[in-house]
Amino acid sequence: MEYQGILDHIYNTLKDVPERGEVASYIPELHKVDPARFGLHLLTLDGKEYGSGDFDIPFSIQSISKVLSLSKALDFTGPDLWKRVDVEPSGNPFNFLALLELERGIPRNPFINAGALVICDVLLSGFSDPKEDFLNYVRELADDDSIRYDETVVRSEKETGFRNAAAANLLKSFGNMENEVEDVLDFYFHQCSLYMSCRQLARTFYLFANGGKNMKGKSFISASQAKRINAIMLTCGFYDEAGEFAFEVGLPGKSGVGGGIVAVHPGNYCMATWSPGLNERGNSLLGMRALEMFTTRTGLSIF
Amino acid sequence: MEYQGILDHIYNTLKDVPERGEVASYIPELHKVDPARFGLHLLTLDGKEYGSGDFDIPFSIQSISKVLSLSKALDFTGPDLWKRVDVEPSGNPFNFLALLELERGIPRNPFINAGALVICDVLLSGFSDPKEDFLNYVRELADDDSIRYDETVVRSEKETGFRNAAAANLLKSFGNMENEVEDVLDFYFHQCSLYMSCRQLARTFYLFANGGKNMKGKSFISASQAKRINAIMLTCGFYDEAGEFAFEVGLPGKSGVGGGIVAVHPGNYCMATWSPGLNERGNSLLGMRALEMFTTRTGLSIF
Amino acid sequence: MEYQGILDHIYNTLKDVPERGEVASYIPELHKVDPARFGLHLLTLDGKEYGSGDFDIPFSIQSISKVLSLSKALDFTGPDLWKRVDVEPSGNPFNFLALLELERGIPRNPFINAGALVICDVLLSGFSDPKEDFLNYVRELADDDSIRYDETVVRSEKETGFRNAAAANLLKSFGNMENEVEDVLDFYFHQCSLYMSCRQLARTFYLFANGGKNMKGKSFISASQAKRINAIMLTCGFYDEAGEFAFEVGLPGKSGVGGGIVAVHPGNYCMATWSPGLNERGNSLLGMRALEMFTTRTGLSIF
Amino acid sequence: MEYQGILDHIYNTLKDVPERGEVASYIPELHKVDPARFGLHLLTLDGKEYGSGDFDIPFSIQSISKVLSLSKALDFTGPDLWKRVDVEPSGNPFNFLALLELERGIPRNPFINAGALVICDVLLSGFSDPKEDFLNYVRELADDDSIRYDETVVRSEKETGFRNAAAANLLKSFGNMENEVEDVLDFYFHQCSLYMSCRQLARTFYLFANGGKNMKGKSFISASQAKRINAIMLTCGFYDEAGEFAFEVGLPGKSGVGGGIVAVHPGNYCMATWSPGLNERGNSLLGMRALEMFTTRTGLSIF
Repeated sequence: MEYQGILDHIYNTLKDVPERGEVASYIPELHKVDPARFGLHLLTLDGKEYGSGDFDIPFSIQSISKVLSLSKALDFTGPDLWKRVDVEPSGNPFNFLALLELERGIPRNPFINAGALVICDVLLSGFSDPKEDFLNYVRELADDDSIRYDETVVRSEKETGFRNAAAANLLKSFGNMENEVEDVLDFYFHQCSLYMSCRQLARTFYLFANGGKNMKGKSFISASQAKRINAIMLTCGFYDEAGEFAFEVGLPGKSGVGGGIVAVHPGNYCMATWSPGLNERGNSLLGMRALEMFTTRTGLSIF
Repeated sequence: MEYQGILDHIYNTLKDVPERGEVASYIPELHKVDPARFGLHLLTLDGKEYGSGDFDIPFSIQSISKVLSLSKALDFTGPDLWKRVDVEPSGNPFNFLALLELERGIPRNPFINAGALVICDVLLSGFSDPKEDFLNYVRELADDDSIRYDETVVRSEKETGFRNAAAANLLKSFGNMENEVEDVLDFYFHQCSLYMSCRQLARTFYLFANGGKNMKGKSFISASQAKRINAIMLTCGFYDEAGEFAFEVGLPGKSGVGGGIVAVHPGNYCMATWSPGLNERGNSLLGMRALEMFTTRTGLSIF
Repeated sequence: MEYQGILDHIYNTLKDVPERGEVASYIPELHKVDPARFGLHLLTLDGKEYGSGDFDIPFSIQSISKVLSLSKALDFTGPDLWKRVDVEPSGNPFNFLALLELERGIPRNPFINAGALVICDVLLSGFSDPKEDFLNYVRELADDDSIRYDETVVRSEKETGFRNAAAANLLKSFGNMENEVEDVLDFYFHQCSLYMSCRQLARTFYLFANGGKNMKGKSFISASQAKRINAIMLTCGFYDEAGEFAFEVGLPGKSGVGGGIVAVHPGNYCMATWSPGLNERGNSLLGMRALEMFTTRTGLSIF
Repeated sequence: MEYQGILDHIYNTLKDVPERGEVASYIPELHKVDPARFGLHLLTLDGKEYGSGDFDIPFSIQSISKVLSLSKALDFTGPDLWKRVDVEPSGNPFNFLALLELERGIPRNPFINAGALVICDVLLSGFSDPKEDFLNYVRELADDDSIRYDETVVRSEKETGFRNAAAANLLKSFGNMENEVEDVLDFYFHQCSLYMSCRQLARTFYLFANGGKNMKGKSFISASQAKRINAIMLTCGFYDEAGEFAFEVGLPGKSGVGGGIVAVHPGNYCMATWSPGLNERGNSLLGMRALEMFTTRTGLSIF
């Protein structure tokens, strides 16, 4: 199939549409991004790469990072992890703390913020130098030492992250947090501030399409763990729009409020998109459309 | 691959395990079923069939029928259907009416009872002789005129279906029900009482593996609609255990409290299992294990 | 104190204010009432009566009737009643079924609809000819045989009462309803359709100001039961505005969507008001203001 | 009436009952208190005092302090306070954060923890030296300079107060907190650690029985404000047991997990009780019984 042509067609079709959603405003730093940015990058299992638009411009990957921390946490703990966080879709996001209370401090899944905080707690206990070690983990997955945290975003998140602080304190009150609340939040804000391009994201997520092995063939998680993470991405990767994404795109994936989305077709490819404008449910509007066009055009969805 | 051998191995491994869950007790009729029943049936895209155990014994398919009524409703309304029912996973079942209230009468998805009642309302408006027409629809999908409703189960459901009556009245109060509450409930209880074997179920669900066409090649829904229904099965097919099923089995599927499960691997196969004992979340315990063994052994999951 | 003068002053101050709220529209019959109606009636413990405006015009008392059915139910069952219905305020009304689910079919208090349906169920089991017997009970409390049900309102409620039908079915599903759902609803809709004037209401509620004895000195409930019902009126009598009423008026009371309010000052007086316009929370706007003016002017609140 | 005899009778009846509930364990310091402690103190409007048992032993008043901070906050802001906190009962405590989310950061009432934190925020903005100024306010109400904070309890609360920290952060995220989260929590924990005896409590709460004036006749709040606070105590003073307390005792009041209760009969008296054992809903078991015996024996309830 002529992938470069398909990507270029999608890029050209969408790049000038006026309806692009709203750039995230809850963190001042994110709000400064140019809403005209738009990039696509495809990496197939055989290592071929295709890109259109701003696929080499880094941005704040935000919640996309939760898949990477989950991957490392599973490596640390194995299936014991599921005693501390469940794997069920979460329903409405407006009452995220409500669900956490109802379920006595066991977050519904590792991708809602409360679940991601538990995962951070696992990493804090497992790593010796958590922020540095996690960055190295991501760099090794991507085979790219230029990946870094964006400290400006970290500071911006800290000043406004009261809902996350609420969730962390609630987890602590239920005994589902070993480390100090501030340390977990500091790690969490760093993780979310990872600054990467579409190309780097596609490379980093290659292991989920490839049974746990990165592009250099090194194994980071088992094939079974990769399969499980794909299942969680499909059912929980898009907040209150997981069903819609499965329905429209038909791939496991994860989005972030920075406007990035990564999608995985196990055994076939990874694709990353970036457009900062978000739809009402917090997912990149053009990114969703681009991925839907790609799977419709190629027929390469899992359903 | 030697499917018959794999099925027999799974059957022999599980058929005598003492831990089989509890047979559903909420409907007296269901409770009378022999908990020792266990059957598996596989139908591949090329029309080959493989079975082990009680795969030709009919049972009450219960909620599995919701996929079939959804299929017909989509055929009637097209995407307008999604104005009346959403496609997001529902989270906790304990508060199913709570969610319905919060979302002003729009059920979270077509497989929770409230959603299935809206689908029934669509069918009542679309069919001229609803119960007869729906039965004929299922018979045609399966190419099997022996399929029937179990009227004893219908009566049993009517006597105990107060929660469904509550949901139907709530939908009516929000204006999301055109027909009379009693008519919708009567149709719903009939639909749930469909009496089918594993073999019949696999044949009926063949269209979801085959882009909307049944075994005789007749098209009932579009390939795109089949893909969408598969996505909804994956994210919403197992009550509060959708994430767990995606995670353990890795296939779109639907379970019923009669102990049946059907799973679909698009482009590859359909598989139906039956064992009346349910786990704590209402899904067939042996059926889940059998499907998990099958996808692990064959590697044929979508993730 | 010169009560007639105070009542006339309140009446004259409020009777022409343009801001009167909205007449209830959810039952067609209620919507036909003239919004200009306004009446006040005061009955002191020594049997003296004072009235201004439309205090002798009957209207649909709606939920005010719940206090009377509670009174009779307590007489039937004694404190066993509290095993089937709690006495705690209910919080938000939007999720009334949610709370009922959470608490496994035990309504929060006898004045939310679900609680009132349980009370109706008690009366259906206790009376031999429920609708007739209950009407006679109210007539005897008021010493007035002209009180009747408004059958037009009953029919109007039945055609639109789907939320009540939902609540009744949910109670039945939890085993907290002995009688048939339709019979309980029929009784409930009759009870709510009681057609009474402010004067009749004040006379009927006299027993709560007088330790359980009506104006003729006949005892219907014990002094302790009267005290308890007053406490429940104070904490639960005004839907989501119980706190506001306690705060502004400072008396036990009960409102109905027909625009009536009755308030009780134990040991001192009963006062009934009627103005069909409701505020946002479903309580009579002028009625609330009139009662607030009365307790402020006289200093006769319980706080 | 012979109050001393009644108090002694209640004290002697209850002092040796074996069923006394459980001493609060969530703060280590509170758990150290001798469960055999039991005291009663009555202060009538004419200034007469009556006591039985341990009425001069100080204890941690905990949530009882919320009434005093509310009183001062009303003095600072007037009715503007009600834009930041509502006055409705809160229903179930298990989901306290859920309600706060649903209502966009406006706590249901000033006595749930979230509401009390908003009140603390008001005091922090209003006082120049908040902890010192508030202590002086309480001392002046009671006319007793020996009242103090218990710093050991403050430290104990800080180490375990994660649910309060969660609530404070959530309030901050909704913009309903002006000051820093840590400062509000520090003030809140000090307020709750006030160390007072039954006698001191009855004297401090005298103003609510006396139209806003303390025993020395100094006015701290208006008569109308006193009436309002009494109404809030009645509807919201006992967590999920407000209805039960209104029902059993029939007085405005406030309890704390240290085992204290203060009840107010406007225009008549204040009564304080202390017994550290709590019932299942967190209110002093013997204290509830003692107050119920007192109002039953004397007939002096508001209903």
